Amino acid sequence: MNTTPINGTLDVVGIGNAIVDVLSFADDALIQSHGLTKGSMTLVDEARSEALYKQMGPTTACSGGSVANTLAGMASLGARTAFIGKVRNDQLGAIFKHDMHAVGVNFPTTMMERGPATANCLVYVTPDAQRTMATYIGACSRVSETDIEPDLIERSAITYIEGYLWDTETAKAAIRKAITVARNAQKKIAFTLSDTFCVDRHRDEFLSLISYNDIDILFANEAELKSLYQTDDIELALQKAKGVCPIIAVTRSEKGSTVLTSDLTEHVSTAPVSKVVDTTGAGDLYASGFLYGLTRGWDLASCAKLGNRCAGEIITQIGARSLKPLNTLVA
Amino acid sequence: MNTTPINGTLDVVGIGNAIVDVLSFADDALIQSHGLTKGSMTLVDEARSEALYKQMGPTTACSGGSVANTLAGMASLGARTAFIGKVRNDQLGAIFKHDMHAVGVNFPTTMMERGPATANCLVYVTPDAQRTMATYIGACSRVSETDIEPDLIERSAITYIEGYLWDTETAKAAIRKAITVARNAQKKIAFTLSDTFCVDRHRDEFLSLISYNDIDILFANEAELKSLYQTDDIELALQKAKGVCPIIAVTRSEKGSTVLTSDLTEHVSTAPVSKVVDTTGAGDLYASGFLYGLTRGWDLASCAKLGNRCAGEIITQIGARSLKPLNTLVA
Repeated sequence: MNTTPINGTLDVVGIGNAIVDVLSFADDALIQSHGLTKGSMTLVDEARSEALYKQMGPTTACSGGSVANTLAGMASLGARTAFIGKVRNDQLGAIFKHDMHAVGVNFPTTMMERGPATANCLVYVTPDAQRTMATYIGACSRVSETDIEPDLIERSAITYIEGYLWDTETAKAAIRKAITVARNAQKKIAFTLSDTFCVDRHRDEFLSLISYNDIDILFANEAELKSLYQTDDIELALQKAKGVCPIIAVTRSEKGSTVLTSDLTEHVSTAPVSKVVDTTGAGDLYASGFLYGLTRGWDLASCAKLGNRCAGEIITQIGARSLKPLNTLVA
Repeated sequence: MNTTPINGTLDVVGIGNAIVDVLSFADDALIQSHGLTKGSMTLVDEARSEALYKQMGPTTACSGGSVANTLAGMASLGARTAFIGKVRNDQLGAIFKHDMHAVGVNFPTTMMERGPATANCLVYVTPDAQRTMATYIGACSRVSETDIEPDLIERSAITYIEGYLWDTETAKAAIRKAITVARNAQKKIAFTLSDTFCVDRHRDEFLSLISYNDIDILFANEAELKSLYQTDDIELALQKAKGVCPIIAVTRSEKGSTVLTSDLTEHVSTAPVSKVVDTTGAGDLYASGFLYGLTRGWDLASCAKLGNRCAGEIITQIGARSLKPLNTLVA
């Protein structure tokens, strides 16, 4: 097991929540009866998480976490990556750590010996393959400035950050440090809006982030972008976003994705998928393909194409980590 | 969560190892380099288990355990079942317990507060969908006579026992108690040979068990039956087995299964499966269907047909627990 930072340059260092997903098939009625919002992520405390879990059907557990999923996908594609995120030294923490190392993601953050347990996300997969999530953030709430190793960021072409981190104050401080280090080292910063409700909770800060030159590459899906600009009209949201930061990649489910720069609006369609099993991780794996292409100097349409392909692969599997290597998708 | 024994009669009470499976795709070379025997289960100690895990690819975790899988399948088909097996009160133990209750299997055995961790089985799934297993038996080694509640056995039409239990002395004593209770209550006893190497380790005891009227229903696959009679000729093994105990159900992979009684040898073919992903649990789920039919008074060919159908379903999924309900398979 590789526990010390790898040497040399890295393609991407990611900072995100370190979570083990616990997935189960469910019907819409169950989600409604629990007061969860279909298609979104709800934060729950430990007691609520346990109560929800007790009423969940048979489960399967896979490592998750949005940025962590993206890095795992990138590593599987062949990129050099590192992850900063917090787990406790418990059985789920060991699983999370294992799965990062197993796919080749460097994960140097110290495990906590006490404090809240490793985070879990209860994922309800409905018959339409949509996922609804209830996350107990646990140990993730303890990621802090001291976990941000400047050296890792300085050695990485891109630092990738998830919006979900805005939900905890210590993580926000960690992110601000990471952004400063990356800026001083003249490295790129990528950011994902994560979830419509997350955008709702932190809209002003997210808007400041992307418009004050802190972010170079923004990932969002249609719903998140509409939430950011408080409109129901995706075309209007795309217009408003255009040029706000250098690159914006908007995922659009079966329609593919749209890439925006100040000069360009390019739509890249995606191939239909024979059997969609579980959409968990679709956006995360899109980012894997897109960022992989960027770090190889590809044009944006090619980046989006690989993003689409990675997303198309993960939705044929249960969970957000591919059990098959993804490098065959790099044409 | 249902922690007290359900009232009234039960279809099956099972006694087995309570294991969480940790599955990963692997190639034949990795299995060879670890000295594991392809298609079989190797017992490993905690240190070896940890060393193997470190070198495993990205994983997905699902509850497992042979008899536990069978009971989960039966519950999903609509049967009333209970499980006796030992986990520790740790995160994997909680997952195992959850998954039993979630599918409706009564699981009254007390969790251990200390001692060895909940058992895990590292499952290597090769490109041919075959599974190779390395099991750290952990808490399972502590199942003992005190865990055998006579009341549960007396209320169950069938007591189902796995051969794997012969690997620990305390479990063997527990089984002998269970057999005595079941016999005195004039209930049926079913038994699975589990694995060729398990048969190798305990051949004489297994032969005594099945030929001294202790067992009413025996499950075996072709390799296990050949191992039991130390022959390479399956026809010879079937001849030797015929009539040794009242019902013998032999699973034969894509050929279906053969049921033997003293009067009858009936082959029941199975429908081809479009895409075999992972054969983990195929034998266990065959037993689910077969025992379900038996407890409903079906003829043996119908029992075997449902067994074939359940096995055919589980091999299209990763892991040995179906995330889809199986009751649609009961025609």
